Amino acid sequence: MAAIIIIVIIWGLRRARGVAMELRPAGHGRKGGAGLGERSGPRMGFRRSGGKGWTWTGAAMKVDSKEGTAPEERERLRRRRGPGRCGVGAQVWAVLLRGGASVRRAELRAGLGSSSASLPVSLPPALQPPAGAVAMGRPAVLLLLLALLTPGVAIPVPPAVKALSSLRWSTSSTSRHFTDAKYSVHYILQKVDHFGFAVDKTFKQRYLIADEHWKKDGGSILFYTGNEGDIIWFCNNTGFMWDVAEELKAMLVFAEHRYYGESLPFGNNSFKDSRHLNYLTSEQALADFAMLIKHLKRTIPGAKNQPVIAVGGSYGGMLAAWFRMKYPHMVVGALAASAPIWQFGNLVSCGVFMEIVTTDFKKSGPNCSESIRRSWDAINRYSRTGAGLGWLSEALHLCAPLTNTQDVQHLKVWISETWINLAMVDYPYESDFLQPLPAWPIKVVCQYLKNPNVPDAQLLQNIFQALNVYYNYSGQASCLNVSETTTSSLGTQGWSYQACTEMVMPFCTNGIDDMFEPHSWNLREFSDDCFKQWGVRPRPAWIITTYGGKNISAHTNIIFSNGELDPWSGGGVTKDITDTLVAITIPEGAHHLDLRARNAFDPTAVLLARSLEVRHMKQWIKDYYANLRKKH
Amino acid sequence: MAAIIIIVIIWGLRRARGVAMELRPAGHGRKGGAGLGERSGPRMGFRRSGGKGWTWTGAAMKVDSKEGTAPEERERLRRRRGPGRCGVGAQVWAVLLRGGASVRRAELRAGLGSSSASLPVSLPPALQPPAGAVAMGRPAVLLLLLALLTPGVAIPVPPAVKALSSLRWSTSSTSRHFTDAKYSVHYILQKVDHFGFAVDKTFKQRYLIADEHWKKDGGSILFYTGNEGDIIWFCNNTGFMWDVAEELKAMLVFAEHRYYGESLPFGNNSFKDSRHLNYLTSEQALADFAMLIKHLKRTIPGAKNQPVIAVGGSYGGMLAAWFRMKYPHMVVGALAASAPIWQFGNLVSCGVFMEIVTTDFKKSGPNCSESIRRSWDAINRYSRTGAGLGWLSEALHLCAPLTNTQDVQHLKVWISETWINLAMVDYPYESDFLQPLPAWPIKVVCQYLKNPNVPDAQLLQNIFQALNVYYNYSGQASCLNVSETTTSSLGTQGWSYQACTEMVMPFCTNGIDDMFEPHSWNLREFSDDCFKQWGVRPRPAWIITTYGGKNISAHTNIIFSNGELDPWSGGGVTKDITDTLVAITIPEGAHHLDLRARNAFDPTAVLLARSLEVRHMKQWIKDYYANLRKKH
Repeated sequence: MAAIIIIVIIWGLRRARGVAMELRPAGHGRKGGAGLGERSGPRMGFRRSGGKGWTWTGAAMKVDSKEGTAPEERERLRRRRGPGRCGVGAQVWAVLLRGGASVRRAELRAGLGSSSASLPVSLPPALQPPAGAVAMGRPAVLLLLLALLTPGVAIPVPPAVKALSSLRWSTSSTSRHFTDAKYSVHYILQKVDHFGFAVDKTFKQRYLIADEHWKKDGGSILFYTGNEGDIIWFCNNTGFMWDVAEELKAMLVFAEHRYYGESLPFGNNSFKDSRHLNYLTSEQALADFAMLIKHLKRTIPGAKNQPVIAVGGSYGGMLAAWFRMKYPHMVVGALAASAPIWQFGNLVSCGVFMEIVTTDFKKSGPNCSESIRRSWDAINRYSRTGAGLGWLSEALHLCAPLTNTQDVQHLKVWISETWINLAMVDYPYESDFLQPLPAWPIKVVCQYLKNPNVPDAQLLQNIFQALNVYYNYSGQASCLNVSETTTSSLGTQGWSYQACTEMVMPFCTNGIDDMFEPHSWNLREFSDDCFKQWGVRPRPAWIITTYGGKNISAHTNIIFSNGELDPWSGGGVTKDITDTLVAITIPEGAHHLDLRARNAFDPTAVLLARSLEVRHMKQWIKDYYANLRKKH
Repeated sequence: MAAIIIIVIIWGLRRARGVAMELRPAGHGRKGGAGLGERSGPRMGFRRSGGKGWTWTGAAMKVDSKEGTAPEERERLRRRRGPGRCGVGAQVWAVLLRGGASVRRAELRAGLGSSSASLPVSLPPALQPPAGAVAMGRPAVLLLLLALLTPGVAIPVPPAVKALSSLRWSTSSTSRHFTDAKYSVHYILQKVDHFGFAVDKTFKQRYLIADEHWKKDGGSILFYTGNEGDIIWFCNNTGFMWDVAEELKAMLVFAEHRYYGESLPFGNNSFKDSRHLNYLTSEQALADFAMLIKHLKRTIPGAKNQPVIAVGGSYGGMLAAWFRMKYPHMVVGALAASAPIWQFGNLVSCGVFMEIVTTDFKKSGPNCSESIRRSWDAINRYSRTGAGLGWLSEALHLCAPLTNTQDVQHLKVWISETWINLAMVDYPYESDFLQPLPAWPIKVVCQYLKNPNVPDAQLLQNIFQALNVYYNYSGQASCLNVSETTTSSLGTQGWSYQACTEMVMPFCTNGIDDMFEPHSWNLREFSDDCFKQWGVRPRPAWIITTYGGKNISAHTNIIFSNGELDPWSGGGVTKDITDTLVAITIPEGAHHLDLRARNAFDPTAVLLARSLEVRHMKQWIKDYYANLRKKH
């Protein structure tokens, strides 16, 4: 426990000195915790509903650990990781970055706030403050402040990581675009409400354009349907579009989703209450995209008669698919990567997600999933006494000691989410999506979890080593913060609201087909929690009503790609529906691996997948031009 | 001018005695005018924007002339017309009418208020009260009250009608269903706002079900996507569905459009202001339909695995087409009859509508359109002096004498709309859609308009005779009321709002290609008028953005039927777009003639059209069942 106070105090001081901070709406900031990860606003991720069921609420429990990082430290991080493709200071207004002024990833996080396509944890309801006791959107885990009292030392780099270092492949060498990234930042005025006329307000939606390889003659437009986060972060993590731009003579457009990043309909008040959040829906987002495409075609000479293809991953993939379904006159087709459009209602089993997570661990090392399965009871046994809690806190190097059963609940949610996140980002090369991680991180983790039949103490020390792979690959962590599962994330409040309204995804575990403690899905409790948090109740059937559920065969030109390692593939389309609604499965793929930049360690399957995707896109483009010629 | 006071006073007395009245929202009633047709609320129909352009704002200028009719008079009307197919008292709550308890048309109008797919006139802006001077929704043409001072006598039945009486065909003999109509009335709770979560309010949407011919084995569901009026009125005027029910083993469902008939989201306050009207959009209406279909499939045993086909005419036809486009998982196809889905933006020329009206008159009698074209100047010449206005008022048997140039403007709009309405309902047999009319009414009208080269006085007397065909086929009128163009109508306020928001249809005339005075389309003035009336501004491009405009080839299974006589065919789809987006044109057809009940005087073309429509529907049904079998 010696590690803690240093990091905390440094953060606190740095913040006081005015180091670059995230852009955050009011009511979205941290207070008191000095970086220790108190929860600002209802978080996304897995929510344990009423202590029984699980709900994915989307983005991450987060503390931006680099938020208050000193400039020299940021520079060091930057050098280690290499620059990202897309980046721009938050204060920039339509700055044209042509000429290589791309901003590095670390800077992005520090200067801009960051975003996340990650799928982490929210506080279990038991840990959430009672309704009325805390202002909407600011449930704070005050107990973590206790950590302020403990000194800290650095945790060593996990030995398994050292052993597997030969597998490392620096992300900075994976793309030919890093140094020549060129894009411009733009804003379009959008109606806050596309579906009514009483509210006349508008807001600025941000979007990025990269047109280095765009050709007016026979070219195309790849349109990223931004999801729950800062669009620059998605731009950074969708190397595929950059890689195929030249081949498709494509203009790249990255459109930010309303209520995320800089695209806040009511500025600092956007998350204030259900009235201000009322326009945060997938339908409004799709309408934004439609208006934006119209705008681009009207204002960019040469764009008018070009085919547009929607591209997106995760929720952005759902949006890409839905956009093609609802606005087929706007896009000739859609690449929906890792889009769990069937993770709603009872379209798929609520247990499939966690079963896939479990399978990933089972396949990554002998007894790995079994070790995790046994760890919960070990934790429960240690949690019976104060001494046990103290031991646990030390053994797991927690930044904040556990003091009661609620803390233990929170701990278990956090650990669960760590395994989930690892399953999502189990990429074949070193990467930095949710966290900086080694290649095939679950294999690394499983090196510590080979023997489930050791005594509790040993098992939990092994669990710590496993967690340490995820949270301390950089070797910088002084302790593990149970309020953090990703280093960069965004949209926590926005996604929490979306999960409480349209995006109701049932999850459950039974402890048999998966390695987790059993939790059923309880919509009633979930709804009550949502009502307490946001003053709204979910309409779990609406997404199926409006987007068709499994009955989507009337649509055309959508590629649904899924990685078999990705737990979201359980809610995805993994079989062809028609000749033009095709499924592409990548056996060694985690969460939308196909959308990532080319990498020397890419498995053959993802190369094939991308090649197929490009072939479909080329066909759509060809068909578009053929029809155009027919008309003229 | 002797005719007037009697009818006015009788109406006034009858109303005072509490004779059955229309169901109307608050602020929608008449006052003072005692039936003289003061305008209650912004009206639908053609709006002359800023005195220069034309806008169709949809439904009719209206006074329910039968509203205050004495019971014996209603009974007489009932006997003359025969009963309608669908009818039910407004106060009925889910009354099952099995057993022949259908209510007669005249009763419907008197007891229920009535609806209209008609396309009449609104006050020209010059006649509208200044903003702020009159409560929203109640611009009153107070000057018409002057008519109270004049006595009245009955106008004789038009001689041309007598001459053409051999063409008459009673509507009461046109259908085998009149006496055995069976349907039930139901209500479903709908969210007021499908696209947001802050407003939790619900309302009761009315729908009708007729399942006499429905078969659970291999059957289908024909779903009428209700438009801007009382659903019973549409039920009454969509005999086609009843005629094909047995052949398609179909359940018939007629769904009322929100904000019309009984389906008022905020009851009497529904039209109070833009905040209450905010949920009156086509998208919300489509979502209602989707929720209703889900409800039917869930609650009616045997309905779950049956194909649903959307059917609609006019705006209802647009909704049917758009429903298939946006919810193809809900309906296997759509019959969109006389649906002007391209009467938006600049998809078609703004002049085409009035050109078709003109062509109808040109083809229906020698010099007919030329007589009308010349009539405007004749009216203008008479309007220069007070004596001239007096003469005009007498010659046209107006209920209210003209007193100023605004009155004359209003008169010309009313006359124009009369010609428009005649073009819409130029059916080959006697009918009672917008008004009781003879077969081929334009031919009858044109008998009076053979010579355009007569002196002004004669020309205008001829115009009166022509108008009298439309307004006095029954021989009951004592004078002509310039605030009335259809006897039964509905949704005036609702459509006025829709025309001011989404349904912006540009119209214009040039006096050369059409027989009207020249008026350009002026969006700016139109928008200003809308803002004054409703506090909202139109978004004229939105319908194209959301429904695709002319770029709809990605969709399938929609029949667009149009009658060549129908001015709305100008904004309709009249050529096949793909193999499954087909156009059917009926040369002798007026406004959705194909949706009307079978009639001995139906032209061959409409018989063929219906036969083709049924063939397509059968194919869709067959494909649905084939796919269903494949799945199981």
